[in-house]
Amino acid sequence: MGSAAERATGDGAWLRAMLDAEAALVRAQARLGVVPMEAAETIGTVAEAGNLDLAALALRAREAANPVVALVEDLTAAVAVVDPAAAEYVHRGSTSQDIMDTAAMLVAVRTLDLITVDLDRAATALEGLAARHRDTLMPGRTLTQQAVPTTFGLKAAGWLHAVRTALVRLRRVRAELPAELGGAAGTLAGYVEYARIAGVPDPRAYPERLIAAFAAEVGLAEPVVPWHVLRIPIADLAGALALTSGVLGKIAVDVQSLSRTEVAEVVEPAAPGRGVSSAMPHKRNPVFATLVRSAAIQVPALAASLHQCLLAEDERPAGAWHAEWQPLRECLRLVGGAAAVTAELAEGLVAFPERMRANLALTGSLTVTERAAAVLAPVLGKGAAKRLLGEASAISAESGRPVAEALEELLPVPEGLDLAGLFDPAEYTGAAGALVDRVLRCCPDE
Amino acid sequence: MGSAAERATGDGAWLRAMLDAEAALVRAQARLGVVPMEAAETIGTVAEAGNLDLAALALRAREAANPVVALVEDLTAAVAVVDPAAAEYVHRGSTSQDIMDTAAMLVAVRTLDLITVDLDRAATALEGLAARHRDTLMPGRTLTQQAVPTTFGLKAAGWLHAVRTALVRLRRVRAELPAELGGAAGTLAGYVEYARIAGVPDPRAYPERLIAAFAAEVGLAEPVVPWHVLRIPIADLAGALALTSGVLGKIAVDVQSLSRTEVAEVVEPAAPGRGVSSAMPHKRNPVFATLVRSAAIQVPALAASLHQCLLAEDERPAGAWHAEWQPLRECLRLVGGAAAVTAELAEGLVAFPERMRANLALTGSLTVTERAAAVLAPVLGKGAAKRLLGEASAISAESGRPVAEALEELLPVPEGLDLAGLFDPAEYTGAAGALVDRVLRCCPDE
Amino acid sequence: MGSAAERATGDGAWLRAMLDAEAALVRAQARLGVVPMEAAETIGTVAEAGNLDLAALALRAREAANPVVALVEDLTAAVAVVDPAAAEYVHRGSTSQDIMDTAAMLVAVRTLDLITVDLDRAATALEGLAARHRDTLMPGRTLTQQAVPTTFGLKAAGWLHAVRTALVRLRRVRAELPAELGGAAGTLAGYVEYARIAGVPDPRAYPERLIAAFAAEVGLAEPVVPWHVLRIPIADLAGALALTSGVLGKIAVDVQSLSRTEVAEVVEPAAPGRGVSSAMPHKRNPVFATLVRSAAIQVPALAASLHQCLLAEDERPAGAWHAEWQPLRECLRLVGGAAAVTAELAEGLVAFPERMRANLALTGSLTVTERAAAVLAPVLGKGAAKRLLGEASAISAESGRPVAEALEELLPVPEGLDLAGLFDPAEYTGAAGALVDRVLRCCPDE
Amino acid sequence: MGSAAERATGDGAWLRAMLDAEAALVRAQARLGVVPMEAAETIGTVAEAGNLDLAALALRAREAANPVVALVEDLTAAVAVVDPAAAEYVHRGSTSQDIMDTAAMLVAVRTLDLITVDLDRAATALEGLAARHRDTLMPGRTLTQQAVPTTFGLKAAGWLHAVRTALVRLRRVRAELPAELGGAAGTLAGYVEYARIAGVPDPRAYPERLIAAFAAEVGLAEPVVPWHVLRIPIADLAGALALTSGVLGKIAVDVQSLSRTEVAEVVEPAAPGRGVSSAMPHKRNPVFATLVRSAAIQVPALAASLHQCLLAEDERPAGAWHAEWQPLRECLRLVGGAAAVTAELAEGLVAFPERMRANLALTGSLTVTERAAAVLAPVLGKGAAKRLLGEASAISAESGRPVAEALEELLPVPEGLDLAGLFDPAEYTGAAGALVDRVLRCCPDE
Repeated sequence: MGSAAERATGDGAWLRAMLDAEAALVRAQARLGVVPMEAAETIGTVAEAGNLDLAALALRAREAANPVVALVEDLTAAVAVVDPAAAEYVHRGSTSQDIMDTAAMLVAVRTLDLITVDLDRAATALEGLAARHRDTLMPGRTLTQQAVPTTFGLKAAGWLHAVRTALVRLRRVRAELPAELGGAAGTLAGYVEYARIAGVPDPRAYPERLIAAFAAEVGLAEPVVPWHVLRIPIADLAGALALTSGVLGKIAVDVQSLSRTEVAEVVEPAAPGRGVSSAMPHKRNPVFATLVRSAAIQVPALAASLHQCLLAEDERPAGAWHAEWQPLRECLRLVGGAAAVTAELAEGLVAFPERMRANLALTGSLTVTERAAAVLAPVLGKGAAKRLLGEASAISAESGRPVAEALEELLPVPEGLDLAGLFDPAEYTGAAGALVDRVLRCCPDE
Repeated sequence: MGSAAERATGDGAWLRAMLDAEAALVRAQARLGVVPMEAAETIGTVAEAGNLDLAALALRAREAANPVVALVEDLTAAVAVVDPAAAEYVHRGSTSQDIMDTAAMLVAVRTLDLITVDLDRAATALEGLAARHRDTLMPGRTLTQQAVPTTFGLKAAGWLHAVRTALVRLRRVRAELPAELGGAAGTLAGYVEYARIAGVPDPRAYPERLIAAFAAEVGLAEPVVPWHVLRIPIADLAGALALTSGVLGKIAVDVQSLSRTEVAEVVEPAAPGRGVSSAMPHKRNPVFATLVRSAAIQVPALAASLHQCLLAEDERPAGAWHAEWQPLRECLRLVGGAAAVTAELAEGLVAFPERMRANLALTGSLTVTERAAAVLAPVLGKGAAKRLLGEASAISAESGRPVAEALEELLPVPEGLDLAGLFDPAEYTGAAGALVDRVLRCCPDE
Repeated sequence: MGSAAERATGDGAWLRAMLDAEAALVRAQARLGVVPMEAAETIGTVAEAGNLDLAALALRAREAANPVVALVEDLTAAVAVVDPAAAEYVHRGSTSQDIMDTAAMLVAVRTLDLITVDLDRAATALEGLAARHRDTLMPGRTLTQQAVPTTFGLKAAGWLHAVRTALVRLRRVRAELPAELGGAAGTLAGYVEYARIAGVPDPRAYPERLIAAFAAEVGLAEPVVPWHVLRIPIADLAGALALTSGVLGKIAVDVQSLSRTEVAEVVEPAAPGRGVSSAMPHKRNPVFATLVRSAAIQVPALAASLHQCLLAEDERPAGAWHAEWQPLRECLRLVGGAAAVTAELAEGLVAFPERMRANLALTGSLTVTERAAAVLAPVLGKGAAKRLLGEASAISAESGRPVAEALEELLPVPEGLDLAGLFDPAEYTGAAGALVDRVLRCCPDE
Repeated sequence: MGSAAERATGDGAWLRAMLDAEAALVRAQARLGVVPMEAAETIGTVAEAGNLDLAALALRAREAANPVVALVEDLTAAVAVVDPAAAEYVHRGSTSQDIMDTAAMLVAVRTLDLITVDLDRAATALEGLAARHRDTLMPGRTLTQQAVPTTFGLKAAGWLHAVRTALVRLRRVRAELPAELGGAAGTLAGYVEYARIAGVPDPRAYPERLIAAFAAEVGLAEPVVPWHVLRIPIADLAGALALTSGVLGKIAVDVQSLSRTEVAEVVEPAAPGRGVSSAMPHKRNPVFATLVRSAAIQVPALAASLHQCLLAEDERPAGAWHAEWQPLRECLRLVGGAAAVTAELAEGLVAFPERMRANLALTGSLTVTERAAAVLAPVLGKGAAKRLLGEASAISAESGRPVAEALEELLPVPEGLDLAGLFDPAEYTGAAGALVDRVLRCCPDE
């Protein structure tokens, strides 16, 4: 919905990337002496201008089951207007999939670059949250119930660690995304033939030189072999994007959980018009988290479609390749949108420490019974301590009185045991602070 | 890619459907005396014209996490230009989800109507194929290997039966798709309040009357209860569309299997430019089947996302509702495209009976060994017959000689057994013809 | 985990179903005079006893990529011990897929019967909840925020309607699940051949009679054509089970939302040991809802796998058939487990009306601002009313004072307007009660 | 189906891993002086023996929604029989998820180790195939049609490269799989409390020392923070396993494509009983490829479920954690089975070079028209050359005569052009050989 990632994955962006791939291909061939340099420059200039009719191209894509056939026709015609001789060199020796796959990688790289910028922003904001709230006490919740105390800093540090790890994964994948160059069936035979015709000096070395030159021109990694039917780059993208969407989705569900009217421990950044309901003037909805969660629900299934497309039979599959385009675009678009929204959310998220403490008090120290069990176990035995605390907890839950009080009635307090202190949640955050420090000073496996 | 289904599910179609829903809502309220009839007519006229800025709406949708808030603002403004008093009645008592869900159902119904027309065309074409090829002998293939003979008519009849069943499922779902009317949290409280203010005679009966009136106005089924968080209509659509895409995909993989260069038993309808390769002038690719299979790979995962969205907490979920829109649109678009392509494919598919017979001959009657096993079993015992035929098959496979010959050398032919006839594939199609007739005369469970 | 559905889908249940299919097949053939009746009885008796080595069968299944080949060998051997002549009639004219598919339908039907019993129990319990809490006021929540009031009765009625609809869908599918009978490639040629050898009077009518007899013997629907590669029954099951798991998951996420420590409007039925934490003696986790939600997360993806398997090429696919077994079993097991747990959950769920009212009071009547907007709009104009209420809401949110009070300061109260009454949530439940009654008296489209 | 991976992921393997985790935990605590060393040894010995009732545990797991609660009870009881004092130290300060997650990682690591052994075997076999068939000419096929020539060596080299890349990914993930240690809500508070009670010298440093000691004891990576709700290790596994299953599935669909009766360019390794049909004695089904493809259809959806589980709210999610266990186990089991089968398949796959050449001849040199287009383009212009070859191809396809002949009639052969040589497929394999060499000498990004 108007995000930078939407533009980076839109029809125009794909057209741009396909033209870039055609221009890079002919430049690479020109560098190796197979095509006149002026022809390559002319084609590059026309491709750069990109005055093609996108809608008409889309329509004609249906005839050939891919959009490159029509693109090549139009680009050839546009070049011929400028220089008919140069037009002969458009798409020379090539195949639709070389252009389409390379374009897909360019679209992916360009969108990933937007995503990593946003995740870096989010990470910086989360570092701030984690540091500021290093010791902000809050209820830890498991299976929807308050369990033991934790800190908001540790929660933010966890988000931070997850975002950083997603960044590592995305950068790893991005660095490995390869250009595609194989010709009709992955043998580069067409390219080799034109090189032979052009009298290239060392024809045996030509294929590897062309692969390297094309990859360099297009700014992508060099593939070991053509990957027309070895769709590892697509699967790697699917995996990293599914991971990232899930990481952002984790932050979103936490923000939602803490935003509930009855919990109210955090609130999303306010802005005029945002989170407004069409019917209810009083509401401030967590719309950022909602958008992110919505993306995170969709991406895993799209990634599964992409993984399914690894089953690419023969030298080009009859369907599995074509089934990649839309899910790949959607994954990039959704993760891109989610990353941008998460950055804004992290930068503006407001936490309410008093409310966190108040919520912790709701259960009358119940969240610290684990600690009491630990302290009493050596004295009374593990089983007896657990039973006793169960009774005291039940009394506390029914009566609303502190567990410490209930406990005092049930047993003679052992010498030197400060029951009240024992039940202070602030004294029972374990290694929360240390873990925040650990995350802040460390980096995931880079 | 320019298909009717693409238009029927595009941004313009959604806007159209949302405006239709707003217009229907105010007409329903006017019918029941809550809104002046002239105001309803004015709103209807402005909504019908639909001169709203789609791109700007999409952008603003991000603020509220749904597009209805902005739509209502723009529609209200557009009505106010014509008649400020009427503008007060836009979206009265309503909520975004009432409009959005109802619009989704309208988009679905309109696309389903395109789909069923195409499936009807496909069914008619398949009836012709099944009838014409009722007795066209071909190899039955299991696990990629020729197994026993079948007929192309039976294959076509199977496709026909599946398409008809998909039609039954789609029509069943279509008839049940409901309007949505619940107000902010499914209680219709806003609508009821305005009815009270307007002094509607029997306020207790009003909600049910409004639901009925709105459903009638919008041409959808009447819901039993608001389904803001009871997403059965979406799940029903997901199920029926996944079924349909799989049925069409089944036809596609069969066409591809039979189109292989080495099999060549069918060819897709020819047309100028279709199936053209950018590099290889001689190829005639099964592009229709490829497009259909590509759709069929994508739809199940999208349907899974929709099923996941059934987990809609509270009175409106924070993400699960928003995650429906794009997968639903994609499912409809993909199945719509696949149905149109399949109709064209079925209408023009060319079968080559001679080639089918020639392929059957490749295995030298091996495909009829099952029959020989049946005939010899009573004479020799089941185990012995199987072993003997295994030996004869091996000899035949190695030497290229007919199994019948190999068998004659291995055993004294029993009295009155016509070994050559026994191995004639044309004599071993079992109930194929009867099953074709059965499908042609019968209808699935309607 | 020890559920009835787990037993009904376990290895033993599949073996039982395969043996039942073999026995039914030979009985059907005997009924039509192709096999001696005593042989059929002997085979039936041995199959009934079912003394086969399950683990050894599973191991040998790998060799043939399906378990039927080994099963037939073992059953034949076991029959031969009793009566060598009868052994000749085991699996006569048949193919692995006839037995395996029929067995899958038997397993499905038997598990569906468990599921529908549990859903009926759940529906009955939900009827009680809906009736008892018809007028129990509670906050309606959208996007995690309190929105407008609703009733617990309406929520329960929604659950009830969804469960009933799932029941309708499951029963519809169950009634349509067909026996499988096609022979090696769907032509029934083997069966026909044996009938010919046996001298059956009207051989042309035999296939349809055999299909009917087999379906009757095995207690399943009669298929129109063999569905070896027309996997609609599997897809129908996938759709209905995904719907059902989502319906139960919806109930689960609602129960969890309402169970949160800070909300505490419902609690799961208590039982010794249930919901116990290994570390925290005081917790009462919503474990039933957790188990159901866990199932509901898994089923959609499994259903997607089953939908993917519709792409079954040729007369038997090389993988797509084999990929069905485990996901189908898992879908049935998970939905079966979830249905049983939901029944227990619905029967014992405890609601706390006072807490619901108290939570509603948290927002100081904010949830009724929608109503005030409706009442004030005719007086002040829609826009002005919305702005005014926005201001009053902000004042109320900051100061903690009732919105009514803040409003009184902002505007001269119109004549005859009872502001306090206007903001009473109990007066703003709209059609909630009527909708509960509507669900209780009506039935989904049966 | 009896595979090593099945055993490594079965109930027994999980129980073993959970006991290993409990034993490692107490050993780590003993190392740091929190638990008496003899108690740790006693617990380790009892855990090693592992005499617990698996079925009973599974049943009781339902009560707490996880199996650890019951396991701890049973282990404690078993230790108490030997030494009641030691029993006090079982699971000290711990939480179910620490044990369950650590056990999941152990199960994953142990299964991954089986998988990588099998993939290494497969890679070695594929190296041999690629080298032996470096120059074995065969038809390259795109969209089911013969396109241009390629070599079987290049196909095998592509498989090899993909398998090696999967190995890289799996090893990367395996090395990063972390132990889990966080206590009830990820703060390690319980562990810290017991350390305090035991009077550990430097309590601040204790948490990080305990994490390191536990990870070392259990042989897993050290986590930066507890990952109870940061499920990156699970998502990483899901991604790598989906990639691997797709890579193996790619090999499988190629083998199936080449195994088709009419293609017959490869055959799976033979073995007594394997690929046997219950009805058709002559068939040799590609059962290995079928099993692998069946797995590859299932894994992506299971991986999607695991990615969905990243949405883990709070400090322990109510369902998303529980939904991981079965899909994770299934992914590991399926990929493990597929890897073992692929190793066997690759080691025994038989290729038929003569048949490949014969199939190439089927199209009468049509597969080399791309080359002719390249050669003629400089002479006649790109457009004219393409049109001319289109005509000649059509004539050839209809008449069965070589394209070269048809061409000679359509145009005056240019001086010095060897038309027959031009159409020799063996002369048009481009860089196939060079690419095989490139793969054989290189390694993916290790």
